[in-house]
Amino acid sequence: METTEELLDEVRALIQARERDGIASLAGRVSPAAWADVVPRLDPGEIAVLLQWLPDEEIPTLLTELDPAQAAAILRTLSRNEAADVLEAMSPDDATDVIAELPEAEAQQILVEMEPAEAAELRELAAYPPDTAGGIMTPAFTAVSPDLQADQAIIALRRVAEEAETVYYVYVLDPEEHLLGVLSLHSLVLAPPQTPVRALMIENVTSVLVDADQETAARLLTDHNLLALPVVDAENRLLGIITQDDVADVLEEEATEDIERLGGSQPLETSYRLAPVKLLVRRRVVWLLMLFLAEAYTGTVLRHYQTETEKVIALSFFVPLLIGTGGNVGSQTVTTLVRAMALGEVRLRDVRWVMAKEVAVATTMGVIMAVVAFGRSALLHVGRDVGYVVALTVFAICVWSATVAAVLPLILRKLRIDPAVVSAPLITTLVDGTGLVIYFSIAKVVLGL
Amino acid sequence: METTEELLDEVRALIQARERDGIASLAGRVSPAAWADVVPRLDPGEIAVLLQWLPDEEIPTLLTELDPAQAAAILRTLSRNEAADVLEAMSPDDATDVIAELPEAEAQQILVEMEPAEAAELRELAAYPPDTAGGIMTPAFTAVSPDLQADQAIIALRRVAEEAETVYYVYVLDPEEHLLGVLSLHSLVLAPPQTPVRALMIENVTSVLVDADQETAARLLTDHNLLALPVVDAENRLLGIITQDDVADVLEEEATEDIERLGGSQPLETSYRLAPVKLLVRRRVVWLLMLFLAEAYTGTVLRHYQTETEKVIALSFFVPLLIGTGGNVGSQTVTTLVRAMALGEVRLRDVRWVMAKEVAVATTMGVIMAVVAFGRSALLHVGRDVGYVVALTVFAICVWSATVAAVLPLILRKLRIDPAVVSAPLITTLVDGTGLVIYFSIAKVVLGL
Repeated sequence: METTEELLDEVRALIQARERDGIASLAGRVSPAAWADVVPRLDPGEIAVLLQWLPDEEIPTLLTELDPAQAAAILRTLSRNEAADVLEAMSPDDATDVIAELPEAEAQQILVEMEPAEAAELRELAAYPPDTAGGIMTPAFTAVSPDLQADQAIIALRRVAEEAETVYYVYVLDPEEHLLGVLSLHSLVLAPPQTPVRALMIENVTSVLVDADQETAARLLTDHNLLALPVVDAENRLLGIITQDDVADVLEEEATEDIERLGGSQPLETSYRLAPVKLLVRRRVVWLLMLFLAEAYTGTVLRHYQTETEKVIALSFFVPLLIGTGGNVGSQTVTTLVRAMALGEVRLRDVRWVMAKEVAVATTMGVIMAVVAFGRSALLHVGRDVGYVVALTVFAICVWSATVAAVLPLILRKLRIDPAVVSAPLITTLVDGTGLVIYFSIAKVVLGL
Repeated sequence: METTEELLDEVRALIQARERDGIASLAGRVSPAAWADVVPRLDPGEIAVLLQWLPDEEIPTLLTELDPAQAAAILRTLSRNEAADVLEAMSPDDATDVIAELPEAEAQQILVEMEPAEAAELRELAAYPPDTAGGIMTPAFTAVSPDLQADQAIIALRRVAEEAETVYYVYVLDPEEHLLGVLSLHSLVLAPPQTPVRALMIENVTSVLVDADQETAARLLTDHNLLALPVVDAENRLLGIITQDDVADVLEEEATEDIERLGGSQPLETSYRLAPVKLLVRRRVVWLLMLFLAEAYTGTVLRHYQTETEKVIALSFFVPLLIGTGGNVGSQTVTTLVRAMALGEVRLRDVRWVMAKEVAVATTMGVIMAVVAFGRSALLHVGRDVGYVVALTVFAICVWSATVAAVLPLILRKLRIDPAVVSAPLITTLVDGTGLVIYFSIAKVVLGL
C-alpha cells in the first residue's frame, strides 16, 4: 500500500532522465488516486514537465482526484485552450469546484474557450452555493420517458452512457422534467424486454431539494443505501444527482470542520498542506483572542480573593489542577455530545435525559477524583483542611462542568448556532472562572477566612 | 425531513389504537432508515407489538439499519426460530455484526436453528476481527468464469441476483477462486452478446488483503471511486467484497473515535444514546485520572516558586490566563494536525515543514497575544514590570506550546501509537506545568526576585 514515496522517487527519476515513455507507461498502471498523492509533492518545474508528457486523457482524471485548489493551480499553468479542453473532459460537478478556485477573470476567459453548452452548464452549477445539494450535484444523469419498454430504455442508455456519471440508476421524467420514478439498471436488465418502464419504476423516489444542506443530502443517501440521490427543485423537477463518491467527500469535510472547531479554530476549508501561514493565523487568532478575553476574567476573580490567597498561599498551588480537571471533564462531555448531535443521535428534546446521564457520570467521577485529590494534597503537605477544600472543590467542579457542557450545545442548537462552536477550549474557559469562584467560596467556608 | 417526531407519534397512536393494518401500511411507505430512527425511542412493550405486526419481510431490513447492539437487543425478544429466520434474510456481513453483540451461548443457539450453509458462512465471517477488511466484508458477491460470453454471464447473474449484495460488479475467478479480473454490469450490458468475458474484464483489480485495517479498505474504495472493493487472501483468492454502504459507516466510526480521543476520552464504540453511565465513566475516568496526575506537577512547580509568589502576589493572578492560552494554542495545533494525519495529508517525513509552519504561525499569534496581554495587565493595575513579564511569557508559551503540539503527534506515529491519543487535554496538561516554569523563570529575571 505505502508506495507513495517509491512512486514519487520513480516519477522524479523519470523526469530527470527525460524518459517521456516511462511517464506514459507509469500513467497506464498507476491509479489516479496514487497520482493525486504524488503530484502535490513535485515542484512546479516537475509538474510542468509531467503535464506535457502525460497522455492527454490522463490529465482530467488526475485533476478530478486532486483537491480543487491544487487542481486550479495546475490548470493555470496550461494555456486557456488546453484548460478548456481539460474542463470539458471532467465531470461537470468536479469542473465547477475547480473553476470556483480560479480568479473570476481567468475563469471567464477559460469558459469562453469551452463548448457553449458545456460552459452554460458549468455557469449554472456555479450559481448554487458550494455547501448545498445543488453545489455538489452533477447534471450528468440518465433519464427516460415512462412510455418506453425495457429493451428500448437499454438502447437509449447505451447512447448516453459515455457522458453519464452513473448508469446504475435511470430516472423516469415526464416531458416537463418532473421526477416520476427511478429504475435500477439491475431491474432493467433482468426484466423481460417488452416490460414497460412505467411498470418497472419505483415511484416514491427519495430526493433532496436543491437548496438543502450538503450534509443533509449526504446522510440521506447513506441512510437509504443509495448509489445516487436525485436533486429536485420546489416543483419536483430533476436538476441533477449526487453520487456516492461525493458523499464520502462531504462526510470527511464535515468531520474535519467539526474537529477543527472542537480544537478551537475556525475551519480551514482547505487542506492543511496547502494552507499558508497567514490563513492558519487568521483562522486561529480570532478564537484565541476571544478565549483570552473570556479567560481574563480569572485574573479579576483571583485579585478579588487576593487576601484569602495571601493568608493561605497553599490555595494557589491547586489552581491549575482544579481548573484543569474542570476543563477536562467539560471537554470530554462536549466532544461526545457534539458528535452525537452531528450523527443525529441527540436532539433538542433530549435535554433532560442527556443532563441526567451527564450529571450521573460526573457525580461518579467526582467522587473518585475527590479521593485522589485529597491524596495529592497530602503529598504537598498543605494540611488536612486545605485537603478537604481541594477534595470538595474537585467534586463540585466535575459536576458543574459536566452540567454546563451538557446543556450549552443543546441551547446553542435551539438558537440555531452550530453546536460545534462550543469547542472544548470554550467550555474550558467558561469553567475556569466559575470554577475559581467555587474554589474560593468553599475555602472561605471551610477555612473560615 | 424532520418528521421523525411526527412518525414516532403516529406509530405510538397506531399501537395504542391496536391498528395492525395501519402499522403494515405505514411500513410500506416509510423508509427503513426512518424506522431505524423511530424504533430505539419506543419502549420495550411497544417494540414487542411492532415486531408482531410488522410484515415479516420488513424486520430484517429494519435490523440492518439499526445499530448492531440495538438489533441484537430486539433479536433477543424473538423466539430462536424467528431470530434464525431474520438472520438468514439479512446480508451476511450485517448478520455477523448483530451476532457479535449477542451472548455467546445465545448466538450458538440461534446459529443451530439456521440453514447449515448460512450458519457456516456467519461462523466464518465472525472469525475475522471486526475492524479489519475481513470484518466488514460480505461473501455475497457475484462471480463468473472467464470463458463465458457476455449474454451467458447475464443469465448466470440473473440466477444469483437475489442473494448478491451488488450486481454492478461481477468478479472473474479461475476454478481455484483466484481473482482474475472484474467486469461492470454496465460493460456487460453494453457489449455485443457474444463477447467473451475475458475480453471485457479489467485485469489489474484494486483489492485489499483480508487482514488490512478497515479504514485502509474504506479509503481505498473512496480514493478509487469504486462501488465495491474485493477482499482477497495472501494467494489472491476472492473471499468477499466491501460495498459503499459499509464505507460511510467506517469513515463515520473512525471520525467519531478520533473526536472522542481528541476530547480526552477512550472511544465509546457504541452510540452515545445506548451507552450506560457505567460505560461512560469507565471510558472517561482513566484519562481524567492520568491527566490529573500529569497536571499535579503544576502544584509542585507553584510550591517551588512559593517565595516569588508571596513577594509579588500579582503574579498568581495570571496563572490561569497564561496556561489557558498555552493550552488553547496547543489544542488548535494538535487537532488540525491529527486530522491532517488521519486524512493522509501529513506523514512522518513531514516533521520539518510542519514544525516550521507551526512555529511561524505561533510566533505571529504570540506577538499579537503579547500586546493584548500587556493591555490586560494594565487593567488589573499590577504595575508595568509584571506587565512585561506577562507579555513575554504569553509569547514564549505560544511558541513552546505550538512546537510541542507539532512534534508530539509525529513522534507518536513513529512509535506506532495512534496520534489521536495526543488529545487536546493531554497537550494542555503537558504545557501547563512547563508553562509555569517559563513564567516564573522570566519573572525571576525581569523582576530580579
